[in-house]
This record gives sequence, structure tokens and C-alpha cells, in this order.
Amino acid sequence: MVRAGMSKLNNMKNIAIVGASGAVGREMMLCLEQRGFPLGRLRLLASARSKGREFDFRGEKIVVEELTEDSFSGVDIALFSAGGGISREFAPHAVRAGALVIDNSSAFRGDPDVPLVVPEINADALQDLARGIIANPNCTTIVTLMALAPLHRAFGLRSLVAASYQAVSGSGARGIAELKDQTKATVTGEDLRTDLYPVPIVSNVIPLIGPVEDNGYTQEEMKMEREGSKILGLPGLRASVTCVRVPVYRSHSVAVSASFEREPDVETARKVLADAPGVALKDDPANAIFPTPLDTTNGDDCLVGRLRRDHVLDNGLAFWVVGDQVRKGAALNAVQIAEHLLK
Amino acid sequence: MVRAGMSKLNNMKNIAIVGASGAVGREMMLCLEQRGFPLGRLRLLASARSKGREFDFRGEKIVVEELTEDSFSGVDIALFSAGGGISREFAPHAVRAGALVIDNSSAFRGDPDVPLVVPEINADALQDLARGIIANPNCTTIVTLMALAPLHRAFGLRSLVAASYQAVSGSGARGIAELKDQTKATVTGEDLRTDLYPVPIVSNVIPLIGPVEDNGYTQEEMKMEREGSKILGLPGLRASVTCVRVPVYRSHSVAVSASFEREPDVETARKVLADAPGVALKDDPANAIFPTPLDTTNGDDCLVGRLRRDHVLDNGLAFWVVGDQVRKGAALNAVQIAEHLLK
Repeated sequence: MVRAGMSKLNNMKNIAIVGASGAVGREMMLCLEQRGFPLGRLRLLASARSKGREFDFRGEKIVVEELTEDSFSGVDIALFSAGGGISREFAPHAVRAGALVIDNSSAFRGDPDVPLVVPEINADALQDLARGIIANPNCTTIVTLMALAPLHRAFGLRSLVAASYQAVSGSGARGIAELKDQTKATVTGEDLRTDLYPVPIVSNVIPLIGPVEDNGYTQEEMKMEREGSKILGLPGLRASVTCVRVPVYRSHSVAVSASFEREPDVETARKVLADAPGVALKDDPANAIFPTPLDTTNGDDCLVGRLRRDHVLDNGLAFWVVGDQVRKGAALNAVQIAEHLLK
Repeated sequence: MVRAGMSKLNNMKNIAIVGASGAVGREMMLCLEQRGFPLGRLRLLASARSKGREFDFRGEKIVVEELTEDSFSGVDIALFSAGGGISREFAPHAVRAGALVIDNSSAFRGDPDVPLVVPEINADALQDLARGIIANPNCTTIVTLMALAPLHRAFGLRSLVAASYQAVSGSGARGIAELKDQTKATVTGEDLRTDLYPVPIVSNVIPLIGPVEDNGYTQEEMKMEREGSKILGLPGLRASVTCVRVPVYRSHSVAVSASFEREPDVETARKVLADAPGVALKDDPANAIFPTPLDTTNGDDCLVGRLRRDHVLDNGLAFWVVGDQVRKGAALNAVQIAEHLLK
């Protein structure tokens, strides 16, 4: 079912970014600019606190407007990245005004009428825009699936065990500031101050991201199973995930062990990944070639390395995947969805 | 078979530390002092480069002597922590001089005539000292097994999938210096210099520790399977491990998913771990209670948290374990072995 709004999109390309002053909002601007998005007017929307801030975009200044119910008149695509509460409150206003919403929060990801899309994996889900909302998946899930989806097509994914190494930018600007301040304190000898995280993140790792569910997993950890199932169309997917914050500024890494229906051989898997759009192999550990967070920072591709047979899982492969979670894990993926809507 | 030397130990307690000026060697001194080890003479042995250095021990200065073939006269127990080459060359001299060797390198771990011991797990292996050498296991393996061994006794371990978060002190003093220097450079704006690691470790994680084997796993990763099998007496143990260096000074963390013969329930597992010697539970994630590397630094216990059913493995449990790898992962474990030899 194609919504009425879709046809308009062929001619009109006015974009609004909700949450424009946040880390992901600003990265969305950068992606629109760098990729030459066919853009009419760009409106930057944020809370009253950010109203009046100016951002450079294609050589001109754009002033941030306060987000209200009436902000979406004339907007074709609204990119939301201001938290679930804002999305739940304002996305319906955007849709009512005729915009398509691409939402980076978790507000609508579980809604069966809202497609959850990684364009390289399931762009076909964009055919059904009944609610006028498309959800952008969780960042760690996107990075992991960028490698898992092509392997799934080749061998049939059954389940995965994963441990993440997540950057502080996943907590937004406050996460970056906290690591920066604590790092400085370790050098100057000042006292460490913890504000955002319950314990220091500098010289430490924190094995808890977000609220805990009754089953002992965090919501962040459960997203791999729930969002992965929906994106891959695999209702029975099982995932055992441990999400860990590490003192890295940007780019999430994931150590993955995956079990498949059919026996995977490593050479075929390597070819499958080398040919997958948005993925690049960096896999020659004997010559110290492997991906690290610094390699993907500000880059579009997710990098895969350490590919090998898994010693435990049936028909298993183990690998390491890294991606810039502000970019492919959030802003770039949303802009790629917008590009697909124009096709 | 009990070696002749053993009986001597009841009366004589002269100790030598080989590699005394290294991080583990110095921690061994600290453990001997803190635990009131019944010690006669302590000899500190190291390379010619460290000869003449002085260390405080129980209020007196001990001068480092150069390690030679003749260094072990009158020594009852020699604690080696100076790398595999030194152990292979000098441990036989120590044994010939009548000493029992406790070796922290990997030189003898695979030798079927050399017990590989974590005292809380398999102290009974110390009955057989035919070669006069006891091997101290790999640090990540010790930390992981401290939690896995009691669970194995309760439910019967079959296999594990693990991802590690290993501190730079695992690379010795040079690892600590590299992270310190790079951290300072990020604050002062100087250029980052990489010396020990192939890429920066500050604001980064490195998914490769040590040489790579033909199967794509590193030696460090394979130690979990090989040493774990020997320590637990489980020849068929399978382990799929990804070892990753993180910008943490001290204490290794491991995210573990383990599969058991019998169905484990989480409450029983929690009781088993709470009662296990050398293990402490820190497991109430809903109230932000979980173990981090900073919690175990300079501590004896390995801390376990995030205990939950594993969603993928048969009869599976997932958990997070952290331990000071200089201490329980190396020096403390060696001194505990020495204490057992005195019994």
C-alpha cells in the first residue's frame, strides 16, 4: 500500500530535522550535504532551548526553529532524532501535515504497521507506508546486521551470540563530554566526576546500557533479537547479547558468533561480505589488519574482520564488525531511507 | 607421585622471583607480603639490565641479582614471570637445584607432566609434581574459570562463547606506558605515538591479542579451550573466544555464554557463585550494580554480574566476570599455589 504523500515526493523535497542540535541531527545535515541530497528547503527544529542557534549548511546559515505542532507545513520528509517522547508526540503532527517521518527513536520500531529499514537489507519494506512513518533501527543492531544480512542470504541465519563495545557518542553529546572531562582529570590529577554514567567510563568498561528487563537482559540487548527478526523477516531469530560501553568516542564494535542453517565456509563468507554494499572487509589478522573504531569514524562502510569458523555453534561463523554508529548506525541510514523514498 | 623436594618444603621456605622487576614480579612480592607468606629468604632475580635495583619488602631493601644458572641454590620455590624463553632456559636449573618452579609463562602449560593449577579449582593436581614444575594459567582463562568452574560442578560445562575486554597491563609495563602516553597526547593535542600496539589503544579497542593460528583464532583465544580443558579435566571442552584489548589499565572483563549438560536455573547459579571461594557476586543491574574493571583493581576476588539465562545456547547461562589479571590472573594465583605446596 503506497501512501498519497509518496507521489508528492517525486517533486518536492523539503526536509525537516527534529533534534537538529543533537549529535545525530547535525550528522544528518552533514549526510544531506555530502551526498548531494536533492533538497528544497531544510528546516531545523529543536526544543526552545536551542531556538535561534545557527548552523552552516551548503554555505548558508540556517536558524533553528522551536518545534511545535505546526512546524511541518510544506515538509515532505521529517527526520526525527530527539528521543522517543518527542517522536510519539510530534510524528503524528508531521504525518497529518503530509510529511513522511523517518524516526531514529525506538518509539515505533515494534509497530507492525511501521517498516523498520536498513536500505541495503530490506528497502522493499518501504513499499508499505500505511502510517507514514519509517523507523530507523538501533545503532548496534544496524552495525551487526550489515554483516549478518549478507551471510543470512548465503547460509540462513538461525541465532547469534554477541558482545558489543559501544562508544560514548551512543549516549549523545553528554557521553562524549563525560569521557573527555574524565580523561582530562586522569592527566591533570583532578578528581573524576561522574554525571551521566553511574561509574567512571575512563579507564573502565560498563556492562550495562539502558534499562533492564525481567529476563535479565537490557532493552538495548533485546533490540538485536526483536529488531533483527523484523528487519530480516526471521520471526524465530534468537540472540544472546551483552552490551558494554567502552571508553571510545565514536563507532561501535561487535564480536559476533552466528549459527546458520547451512554449513558456511569461510572463503565463501569472505566473498559474500566483500560483495555486500556498505560493507568492507579488513581481515588479515596475521598481518595486523583488522577493523577498529578509529578506522570507521566518520566513514560510511561497516568494516568486518576476524572472520573464522565458530568453535561452538552449529554451522557457525565468528567475526568482528565495526561501524560509525552516529553515521551508519543513525544519521546516514535515515538519509539513505529518505533517498530510497525519492526513487 | 610426590617429588622428594616436597618434604623439604615443610621446613624451608626460601623463595626466588624470576622477573622481579616486571609488573607481575612486583605484584608477587606484594602478595607474599600482604598474605604473610611463611618466608625465609626472598631472592629477586632478573636480567642484567635490572641488576642492582632495590625493592622494599617487609621494611627491608632487597637488591635484584642477575639471573644465572647458579641462582637457585637453597631456593625452595621459584616463581617465574619473565616470559616463556627464560622459563624454558632456567626452570630446569631451578629444578636441578632442588626448587619447585611455579611458572607464569605459557612454556609448560601444555606439558602433560606439568599440572596447570587454579588452587580454588584443581589444587588436587598438585599431588603430581614429577617434573618439579607447576604452570600458572593464562590470565583471561583464570578469570573466566573462576566463575565457570563452580557452575561446571553444578551443571556440567559443555562449551562457551566468550568475548574479552583486556587491560593494557596484560602487555606489561609497556602497555601501561603506551596508554598513559597516548591519553596525555589526546589532552595536550600532541601527536599520538604507537610503539607497542599496531594502532592507537586510547579511544579505541583492538580485536587482536598475540599471534594468529591457522584456524583464524589467536593463541590467546585458544588458551581458553586448551587450558580450560586441562584445568577442568574436560577433554572435549569447546570454546569460541574473541580477545580484545581495551583502554583500561588493569583488570580483564569477559562476557561469557556457557552451555551445560543440565538445565541451570539462575537462582541456583547465583547461590553456587556466591558460595564459591575467590568469587563475589555483584549482580543487581536494575539498581546499577554490576562489576567493572575499576572494582577489582588490586582486589583478590573475581566479581560476577549480569547473570541470566542464555537465549541461544542449550542449557545456557550468560554472565559477566571481571578480575585483576595482574593479581588473580597471575601473581596471586602463583602465590596461592606456593601456599598449597606448604600444606
